[in-house]
Amino acid sequence: MTSDPAPVRILIHGASGRMGQALLRLAAERDDVVVVAAVQRSQPAQRVVDGVPHFAASELPGAPEFDVAIDFSLPEGFDPVLALCEQRGAALVSGTTGLEPEQREALDAAAQKIPLLWAANFSLGVAILGELVERAAAALPGWDCDIVESHHVHKKDAPSGTALALGACAEHGGASPRYASLRAGDIVGEHLVQFATQGERIELVHRATNRDIFARGALHAASRLPGRAPGRYRLRDLLS
Amino acid sequence: MTSDPAPVRILIHGASGRMGQALLRLAAERDDVVVVAAVQRSQPAQRVVDGVPHFAASELPGAPEFDVAIDFSLPEGFDPVLALCEQRGAALVSGTTGLEPEQREALDAAAQKIPLLWAANFSLGVAILGELVERAAAALPGWDCDIVESHHVHKKDAPSGTALALGACAEHGGASPRYASLRAGDIVGEHLVQFATQGERIELVHRATNRDIFARGALHAASRLPGRAPGRYRLRDLLS
Amino acid sequence: MTSDPAPVRILIHGASGRMGQALLRLAAERDDVVVVAAVQRSQPAQRVVDGVPHFAASELPGAPEFDVAIDFSLPEGFDPVLALCEQRGAALVSGTTGLEPEQREALDAAAQKIPLLWAANFSLGVAILGELVERAAAALPGWDCDIVESHHVHKKDAPSGTALALGACAEHGGASPRYASLRAGDIVGEHLVQFATQGERIELVHRATNRDIFARGALHAASRLPGRAPGRYRLRDLLS
Amino acid sequence: MTSDPAPVRILIHGASGRMGQALLRLAAERDDVVVVAAVQRSQPAQRVVDGVPHFAASELPGAPEFDVAIDFSLPEGFDPVLALCEQRGAALVSGTTGLEPEQREALDAAAQKIPLLWAANFSLGVAILGELVERAAAALPGWDCDIVESHHVHKKDAPSGTALALGACAEHGGASPRYASLRAGDIVGEHLVQFATQGERIELVHRATNRDIFARGALHAASRLPGRAPGRYRLRDLLS
Repeated sequence: MTSDPAPVRILIHGASGRMGQALLRLAAERDDVVVVAAVQRSQPAQRVVDGVPHFAASELPGAPEFDVAIDFSLPEGFDPVLALCEQRGAALVSGTTGLEPEQREALDAAAQKIPLLWAANFSLGVAILGELVERAAAALPGWDCDIVESHHVHKKDAPSGTALALGACAEHGGASPRYASLRAGDIVGEHLVQFATQGERIELVHRATNRDIFARGALHAASRLPGRAPGRYRLRDLLS
Repeated sequence: MTSDPAPVRILIHGASGRMGQALLRLAAERDDVVVVAAVQRSQPAQRVVDGVPHFAASELPGAPEFDVAIDFSLPEGFDPVLALCEQRGAALVSGTTGLEPEQREALDAAAQKIPLLWAANFSLGVAILGELVERAAAALPGWDCDIVESHHVHKKDAPSGTALALGACAEHGGASPRYASLRAGDIVGEHLVQFATQGERIELVHRATNRDIFARGALHAASRLPGRAPGRYRLRDLLS
Repeated sequence: MTSDPAPVRILIHGASGRMGQALLRLAAERDDVVVVAAVQRSQPAQRVVDGVPHFAASELPGAPEFDVAIDFSLPEGFDPVLALCEQRGAALVSGTTGLEPEQREALDAAAQKIPLLWAANFSLGVAILGELVERAAAALPGWDCDIVESHHVHKKDAPSGTALALGACAEHGGASPRYASLRAGDIVGEHLVQFATQGERIELVHRATNRDIFARGALHAASRLPGRAPGRYRLRDLLS
Repeated sequence: MTSDPAPVRILIHGASGRMGQALLRLAAERDDVVVVAAVQRSQPAQRVVDGVPHFAASELPGAPEFDVAIDFSLPEGFDPVLALCEQRGAALVSGTTGLEPEQREALDAAAQKIPLLWAANFSLGVAILGELVERAAAALPGWDCDIVESHHVHKKDAPSGTALALGACAEHGGASPRYASLRAGDIVGEHLVQFATQGERIELVHRATNRDIFARGALHAASRLPGRAPGRYRLRDLLS
């Protein structure tokens, strides 16, 4: 007789944000994970919502036991959740942007003790695209490499963090990418990595049309990270 | 009994350049035009090549009678051919780039006397694209407009003249286009004009894969311009 | 002193469907329209929802006064709403698919008395694309024309009604389009109309990423149709 | 002191065809290969052209020594060149299409003795695309896979051999591709392999704009195949 493994226990940090809300909604649809704590900046209006206990950031140290934290918060909220994961020996999945150099160093240091994953983009498609870009760059020396990213008009930074991450994959394969950025309508996110030479061209494109893919990817990572050896993981390391 | 009209008599100015050579080759395949003079900067090695009389630029004033001149030369060669067309009452089709402001004014002045057409791009597809862009911009107020152009790595100027011309069409329709430029491989020329709003997007694209289209477009214009009223024409005015 | 015109009074037929719900939600955000009746197949659970009176289809003849009906129902529900519009002298906007030939004839007959618009696709972008396609086809005789449409895997019919409508525009311009259909993921709807010849190509693309655009387009039409002369209108006739 | 290796000696079979002519032209520009024999169906008009000895197919058995044959001929010409390579212990690169099942078996049998490569498409870009497609298919189980290929209007077969080869890569990775084919203008060859799921999509595209890329890829393969262990190779096995 086989029984399903116990669901992975997740603490969501940054629960009141757009990603936090999507994580709560999508986690409720899965059998392989259970949210044991939703932590938000301010005092929660209700202690328990749809069966999930809610906490203020100030109550983080007293959070119940968890296997992995998913953090989509702000740089100023990042240090406590990293410290808690180290202290509890729990895994960490983080998509918090704008971290200071010391915070990035702290991530590296924590990776000696716990498995963790920080990513600019949690789409599984973008993760595999990065791998394809690196392979193409390595196999096509001398081809020109260009990256074009398109996002909604409210996006401030350019090129996008994802474009830069794809560019790093291309550089790792030996290419020297150039960047262009478009801001238009409500585009969720599109990235084109193009390799061109005399007479032929390869275009590798990712199109996101729904933000839920980022929450799905973070949950996918959270379900696969606990129990692994300490270290920094990439989303593509956790694909099938 | 109907007889075909007499072929249009063409003088090609800038005959030794890449466009000049393509014009000579493609004109020879057509029944509706005949090249009566090929004018090049330096003394021609042969006086007659494939039945076409060749002349040095210094001999331009003594060129045989023609209905229309096609000029793909350099700014310093432009004034004499414009003057000759005015003097002879012939039409002028020019794609010479880098004209000085006074030369552009001279074009406008000449348009009082002869029909003429100056264009940055002689592709029929680009001509119609400009018309579509203007219509889309007028029909879609408030949509974001972006223009992306891709060319071979040897192209120096950015955005391309064609991108700016398409942008002028968009502005004429009421849009405020933004530009991005890619330089890769041996791309002949690609232009994307995108209109985006909440939940939907229109992309209008032109791809050139063979430079012959520019010579074909110039011959098309040359075959249709003579006999028209004086004025400045656009390639799209001469489409069916 | 100028006052805003009175809002257009709308009856929504098919109010419990996906489009009906989107229409109710988006109409509530606008000042220029007011929903005076929401009609659904079965008895409504509540008589008034968010200020909008709800009715069962059997109660349609007793609906309050309205300027225009928006109908996204089923072929079997179509005849009564058409009859009511004729009887009341109200305009009709319908996107109901699968109509029988006699129902299409009835539409034509009603257009003698009231202004009406039936469309397979209510995206404003698709409406303008149809116009651009017709113009391109007319200006580019002899170019090959291909139409590729992509939709989610649950879409049954192929080519899509929108692809066929775009194809009719191309044919009206003199082209003979060929069709290809892709069914993948949850694609809301993408249409490419391509014109190709020797050495160059034009691609005209529409991408829908959010279904709300269809409800927005129907409300746009409904706000502009009342008061017009009787006849069949196209969405593109109601663009700016 | 290092000296360059001796150039690879190539026999070109099918020298009078379009590919044969491109091979001769492009081989002459390289230092690492030398064409020692150009074999064509009928008696050559000149015995030596640009320093390359020419032979009729009937003279094939007496051809000078070579390291590798490049064969772009017809099914009826294929058996003799395969037999000669086996007999001489030379490598074989073939792009001859329309081979009979027995000829394909003969290829497999010969691969016990000599290194050989048969491919439907010799573009390096397509070769790497096949590898990317296989990787994407394996990493993205459950995503829908579609392949769209576009070629000039004179292409008879559909889907293209390249599309089917890319489809085989996708199947090898676990996907079930569907195909669509477009025939338009003078498109040299374009292939799109798309993977789609809820909310996101990956598009992997190859565009060929110049047929020389196929001759370049065949010369690349020919320069790298001699000296390898017997067996059937793929172009992607010979990339850097």
